[in-house]
Amino acid sequence: MNAEIIAVGSEMLTPERVDTNSLWLTDELNQLGVEVTAKHVVGDQRDRLADEIRKALQHAELVILSGGLGPTEDDVTRDAAGLALGRGQNYSEEIGGGIEERFRRMKRIMPETNRRQAMVIEGAEILPNDRGTAPGQWLETERGALVLLPGPPYELKSMYAREVLPRLRRMVPPMAIRTLTMRISGMSESALDEAISPIYTRYDRIVTTVLAHNSDIQVHFRARCATEAEALGLLDEIGPKIEVALGENIYARTADPLEVIIGRKLQEAGATLAVAESATGGGLADRISSVPGSSEWFLGGLITYSRRLKTALLGIPAEMIERHGAVSTEVTGAMASAVREKTGATWGISVTGNAGPTTDGAQTDANQAGVGHFFVGLANPRETTVTHRVWPAPDRMRVRAFAAQMALDLLNRKLDQEQPGAAGKS
Amino acid sequence: MNAEIIAVGSEMLTPERVDTNSLWLTDELNQLGVEVTAKHVVGDQRDRLADEIRKALQHAELVILSGGLGPTEDDVTRDAAGLALGRGQNYSEEIGGGIEERFRRMKRIMPETNRRQAMVIEGAEILPNDRGTAPGQWLETERGALVLLPGPPYELKSMYAREVLPRLRRMVPPMAIRTLTMRISGMSESALDEAISPIYTRYDRIVTTVLAHNSDIQVHFRARCATEAEALGLLDEIGPKIEVALGENIYARTADPLEVIIGRKLQEAGATLAVAESATGGGLADRISSVPGSSEWFLGGLITYSRRLKTALLGIPAEMIERHGAVSTEVTGAMASAVREKTGATWGISVTGNAGPTTDGAQTDANQAGVGHFFVGLANPRETTVTHRVWPAPDRMRVRAFAAQMALDLLNRKLDQEQPGAAGKS
Repeated sequence: MNAEIIAVGSEMLTPERVDTNSLWLTDELNQLGVEVTAKHVVGDQRDRLADEIRKALQHAELVILSGGLGPTEDDVTRDAAGLALGRGQNYSEEIGGGIEERFRRMKRIMPETNRRQAMVIEGAEILPNDRGTAPGQWLETERGALVLLPGPPYELKSMYAREVLPRLRRMVPPMAIRTLTMRISGMSESALDEAISPIYTRYDRIVTTVLAHNSDIQVHFRARCATEAEALGLLDEIGPKIEVALGENIYARTADPLEVIIGRKLQEAGATLAVAESATGGGLADRISSVPGSSEWFLGGLITYSRRLKTALLGIPAEMIERHGAVSTEVTGAMASAVREKTGATWGISVTGNAGPTTDGAQTDANQAGVGHFFVGLANPRETTVTHRVWPAPDRMRVRAFAAQMALDLLNRKLDQEQPGAAGKS
Repeated sequence: MNAEIIAVGSEMLTPERVDTNSLWLTDELNQLGVEVTAKHVVGDQRDRLADEIRKALQHAELVILSGGLGPTEDDVTRDAAGLALGRGQNYSEEIGGGIEERFRRMKRIMPETNRRQAMVIEGAEILPNDRGTAPGQWLETERGALVLLPGPPYELKSMYAREVLPRLRRMVPPMAIRTLTMRISGMSESALDEAISPIYTRYDRIVTTVLAHNSDIQVHFRARCATEAEALGLLDEIGPKIEVALGENIYARTADPLEVIIGRKLQEAGATLAVAESATGGGLADRISSVPGSSEWFLGGLITYSRRLKTALLGIPAEMIERHGAVSTEVTGAMASAVREKTGATWGISVTGNAGPTTDGAQTDANQAGVGHFFVGLANPRETTVTHRVWPAPDRMRVRAFAAQMALDLLNRKLDQEQPGAAGKS
C-alpha cells in the first residue's frame, strides 16, 4: 500500500518551519509496511488544496491530511476534501454540542465560527479528538481512505494511535518488522557508508538508515517480512557481515550513545571520571553530564581554557607549557593525570587543541599547534596515554564536536581493554 | 508572483530526512517578493512527478525542481519535466563533451549512463553547474518559468545565485526589503508572541519571524515595500512600539547571541570571566567558549558536579554545604566568588540546580532543592549576588539549557548596570 501526506498551513511555507508531522507519520506508516510516495505542504487555499487531494487520491491508496481543521476562515481542509470527493457536508449536533459544552465549562460562549468544526463530510466517520476541539474524519474511498487529522502534533499523534492505526491494521496485510541498531564511532559517515553499502544494498527487504549526531553514528537495519522468523533471519544474516566490515568501530548494539555506554561501564566497575578541557571548552563535560544519573560516576572537572589556569588550577608547570606549547602531548598528558589527582577520580581525561579560527587559550608561543590539531589524554591509576589527531575541517563548532567524540571514543576503547569482562560491548 | 517548489528523491520520503533546499529557496524567493504557495517531495517516479509538475504549473507562475538530474535510471526529473510540458529532449554535444572531458581529467572513461545528463528539453536554456556534473535547465513558460536545479545544496545554491537569481530579477518587479533584528532574553517564546503580536499583525507589509534556540530568542521584522525609504519608514515605526512592549528584555539589535554580546562588553571593559558549574555540567562554558576569539576574555573554570569537588577544588566548606544544601543561595554565592579568586577573573559566574530526573551531584541531604530549582551566582570585585528561579519543565536537557541562558542573561544585565557606558545595548 502507498500513501501520500498533505500538510495544510501557510505557516509551514516560511523559510524557518518544517512539517514534522509527516516525518512522524512516515515512520508509523513504514512500520505497517506502507510506503510514502509523495508529500506536500499546501497553504490555506481551498481550491489549490482540493486539487492536491484529487491528485493524491489518483496516485495513492491512502491520503492523510494534517492541519486546517480549526474554526477560522483560514481552515480550509474540510471544504477542500469535500470538494475533492464531490461530497457535501452536514452539521453534526453531536460534535457541535461537545464543543459548546467545552466552552461552557470554560465559562465562555462559543463563537459562531466554531460551528465550522462540527461540519462533517458525507459518509465520513468522525475521529474524536481527546486533546483539542477539532475532530478528525475518516473517509473510505474506492481504493483506500482519505484521512483528516488535526495539525498540532500532540493532538495528531493521539488521534492516529487511537483511531487511525486500528483502521489501517484492518486494511493492510500484516507485516513483521524487526530492527537491528548499531552505534559506531571512530569513522566518518561517508567512510561508514562506503564500508557497508555493498552489503546492505543486496537486501531489498531491509531498509538501512544512517544517522549522525555530534559525529556519533547510529545505523538502523529494519527488516520487513511476512513473518517474524523471516525478519529475524534476515537480520541474523546481515548482522555478522556488517560486524566484519566495521570491526571494533561498533561500540554498541543498542541506540545508546557513547556517553551512556561509558557511564554503564564505569558504574559497573565502580569507577569515576573527571575531565580537564581546554579546546572543547566544556562541551565534553556537557555531553557526559547530560546522561541522567551521571552524578553517580562523573565528578566534574576543570576548564582550563587559558594557559594561566592550566598552571593555577591544575599545577602544570609554566615551563612545560613554554617549552612544548599548550597544545602538546606533554601538557595534555599532564592535564589528564593532574585532574585525576586533584579530583580523586579513577579516570582523568583531557582535551587540548586548536579549533580555530585563531588560536584558543591565548597559546601564542612558537610551539603552537595549527588549527585542527587535537590531543586527548587518558589517565588511570596505572598509566597515562595521549593521542594526537588532525582534522582539516575549518568549521570551529564541528571540530569541537569531533574532539569531544574522539575523547569519548578513546575512553570507551580503553575501558574495554582495562575491564574487558566488566561491561563488554553493551 | 507565486512559486511552488518540488524536491525529487525517494530518500527524502523517509522518517529521518527533511528537504532543506526548499527552506533555503523560500528565503531567497521571499527576498524577491515571491511567495511560496505550496511545496512537494516526490519519489523517483517519472509519471507521478510529471503530474505534480503539470499541477504546479497550473497554480504558480514559477515552479522550481531540485534533484533527480543525476546520470542513473532513478533520475527522472528531465523526463518528467519534458512529459509535463509535452516537449522532447535533445542530446547536447556541448554538455556531453564537458562531462566526457571531466572524466578524462580523472583518468576514467565516462559510463554510457552519463549521457543522460547531457539531454536538454526543447527550448530550455542550460544552466551551467560549476560544482558538479549535472547542469540545470531554465524553461520559459506562458506564465513564468519552470526551473530544474541539482539536488546537492552546494551545487543548487551556487547555480541559483549565478543563473536563476539574475533571470528572476528581470521577471519580478523590484522590491526593497529591509530587516530589523532583535535578540530577546528573559521571557518565553509564547510570552514574547503575546506581547508583540498585537503590534506586528497590524503591519501587513512586515513579515515577522520568531526563532528560539537554547531559549535565546531572535525576532526578525522584514519590511517589503516598493522603495527603500518606505521599508525603512515602516521599520522606524514598528521598532519603537516593540521596544516599549519588550523593554529591557531586548538585549541586542543585531543577530548576535547573548554570549557574543557579553564577550564584546567584557573585552571593551578589559574584563575577564570564569565559571563554576554544577547543574549545567559544562553547558554554560561550552556556549561561552563557542564564540570565536573567546580566549581573549574567557579564562575557563570548574565543573564541580560532585559535592566533593565543590570543597576540594573551590574550597567551599563542607559544613556550609551540609547546612544549606549544595543547591542553595549560600553555596552558589560562595562558588561564584571562589572561582573568581581561584582564577583571577574579573567576573565569576556559578550555576547550581536540580535538572532531574533524580538529584544531580549526589546532593542527597535534607536541604536538597527539588527538581527545576536553579541558582545563579554573580561575583565581581565589589559584590556577589545570587538569583533563584524555578522551572516546572520536566525535561532535563531543556532545563539545563534554560539555566545556562538564565546565567548569561543575568550576567549581561549586570554588565549593563556596572559598565553602562562601556558597550550599552550592543
